[in-house]
Amino acid sequence: MHNPSVRFPRRPIRERIMTEKTLEAVVLAKRPDGSITPDVFATVERLWPAIKEGDVLTRTLFASVDPYMRGILNEGRTYREGLAVGDMIPGETVGQVIQSKHPAFREGAVVSGAFGWATVLATPGDRLVRVPDDVPPSTYLGVLGMPGTTAYSGMTDIGQPKAGETVVISAASGPVGATAGQIARRAGARVIGIAGSVEKCAWVTEIAGFDGCINHHENLDEQLDALCPDGVDVYYENVGGTVGQAVIRRLRNHARVPICGLVADYNDRDYSGLAHAPTISAAMLLFRRARIEGFIVGDRPERFAEWRALATPWVQEGSLVYKEQIVKGLDQAPLALVGQLSGQNFGKLLVQVADVPTNHE
Amino acid sequence: MHNPSVRFPRRPIRERIMTEKTLEAVVLAKRPDGSITPDVFATVERLWPAIKEGDVLTRTLFASVDPYMRGILNEGRTYREGLAVGDMIPGETVGQVIQSKHPAFREGAVVSGAFGWATVLATPGDRLVRVPDDVPPSTYLGVLGMPGTTAYSGMTDIGQPKAGETVVISAASGPVGATAGQIARRAGARVIGIAGSVEKCAWVTEIAGFDGCINHHENLDEQLDALCPDGVDVYYENVGGTVGQAVIRRLRNHARVPICGLVADYNDRDYSGLAHAPTISAAMLLFRRARIEGFIVGDRPERFAEWRALATPWVQEGSLVYKEQIVKGLDQAPLALVGQLSGQNFGKLLVQVADVPTNHE
Repeated sequence: MHNPSVRFPRRPIRERIMTEKTLEAVVLAKRPDGSITPDVFATVERLWPAIKEGDVLTRTLFASVDPYMRGILNEGRTYREGLAVGDMIPGETVGQVIQSKHPAFREGAVVSGAFGWATVLATPGDRLVRVPDDVPPSTYLGVLGMPGTTAYSGMTDIGQPKAGETVVISAASGPVGATAGQIARRAGARVIGIAGSVEKCAWVTEIAGFDGCINHHENLDEQLDALCPDGVDVYYENVGGTVGQAVIRRLRNHARVPICGLVADYNDRDYSGLAHAPTISAAMLLFRRARIEGFIVGDRPERFAEWRALATPWVQEGSLVYKEQIVKGLDQAPLALVGQLSGQNFGKLLVQVADVPTNHE
Repeated sequence: MHNPSVRFPRRPIRERIMTEKTLEAVVLAKRPDGSITPDVFATVERLWPAIKEGDVLTRTLFASVDPYMRGILNEGRTYREGLAVGDMIPGETVGQVIQSKHPAFREGAVVSGAFGWATVLATPGDRLVRVPDDVPPSTYLGVLGMPGTTAYSGMTDIGQPKAGETVVISAASGPVGATAGQIARRAGARVIGIAGSVEKCAWVTEIAGFDGCINHHENLDEQLDALCPDGVDVYYENVGGTVGQAVIRRLRNHARVPICGLVADYNDRDYSGLAHAPTISAAMLLFRRARIEGFIVGDRPERFAEWRALATPWVQEGSLVYKEQIVKGLDQAPLALVGQLSGQNFGKLLVQVADVPTNHE
């Protein structure tokens, strides 16, 4: 599955000698300027790290590709400090244990929680969780992982949808949006998605069961007027830009807006976090008595186990649906991220780095 | 106390015949365009209304002058529908019962809850509350009334200050700001006020006990840097405009911003509530995981009794201080409001309409 040939011309790696003890990692090759291209990254070869007491060495099965990664390629702070050039891209993974110095993890176990776009990772065992055998391991990066827990936290902690309310969700076919919408529907709300193609909208309504879905490339305002004639009680914000502005203009009294992400804006050069679109009118917030709140799920770590306990049976019985898009080969991760930031993915975007063990499907 | 002569040249009232059965009321004479002037209002003379079963007729002692009144002079909706030309200005009052068809209120009782810039008002008794004899009746329009309860609700429901946090409050010498700051100090926070003059700042720090106060007419940014070097955890927003923008730029992670008012903007011609300064960056909210929420105390009516129970002993013992500015004569109310909107008042602005009964001080 690993193609040892050079992927990124700016940082050629030497001809790789396939041994048990080398790994591939994707690093930041240069600081991006606006929209990213794959040559911002380079694939490098390294020796396996030695693990110390308490650590676990994993072979990556799936590496996650998430929009938040764009921000940390920049210099300066967004949620966290930006990467330095040469640093490994710190994505979430699901992996299989190949060496363990932690009593809770035996060789062969499938775990999530190791971070990095690399074929092999060393991680303190205390940061890992076991992926149970009765769910597909990829779900621990999607519907049962960070995106699903983000949907759960944002929708329940901030969105608080009530029966009969109108909930609008952007990036509705993505793992956060699709999950957030299904949570709101379980609360009895009327849920309208916004997505970037006819195909995505069809999935959102026909498979994920939303009450409606708007293709934002076609008459966004007219469609919002038609599907939300009385305005919007909850807007789960994933994209920002003109989509976010259009929905925020339609907030009803006592509306809640969890701001989860602003993907449409992540490639902007002025990604400072301080003078960025969309902007929200304080007067509108005042007159509508509306609440807008940014959040990241990492601030609520207790939500992960809570959500997994709640949602695992729903995933197993098929009442909570999800869509995945799987790209093969770690060296394809940069191009996958580039595409994701312009909305080209459809569903949870994953890079499959190695074959999944046969006890998992 | 009532001067029967003509006050507003655009709407002269006929020479008044002083009888027991006539009242004066201030009405909207014409729709304002931008900054208001007193000729937007007119004083008219009317007969006393007949009261029906359950109603109470009161003679106004104090009428409140509050910035929110500016919004409802416009056409269209802010919190509520705007007034029609000819409508009475609906301010809060404290009054003395002169006729009662409600069993809970006897003649002579001092009550609050009647609404209107008028010398005599008829109100359903169920909307009135008795002003106890052991507090000055004017406090039921200020520290123990709508402004005080607004401070309490915004600071506790949204601001949620914690010991050691930095809380910034604009319009800090006003009845909302001064009360909100004292509430935050009781919670152990470090409280910095912003006010519009050296005199106001001196009162805010020396009398109201804030930890610091910034005169926003002088190097606002430098003073904020000096007094809030690590940023702002809670910003209680009363004014908007450049003051609001400057503080909002300095929010820390997990900051909370109750938006209570935007006085600096109330005279704007584009007072639509939809495209109004200050604007808040969604990216900043996301990266700082900050919460911004507009509110009005009328949405939380249970807070009034709660706050009065809590704060009445503090007012009586002097541990919760307040400042009042009292103008005499109902016909002075329009000019008082005009001045208030440009920051000329100092403390809770009241119009004294009649003498306070001697059992009250």
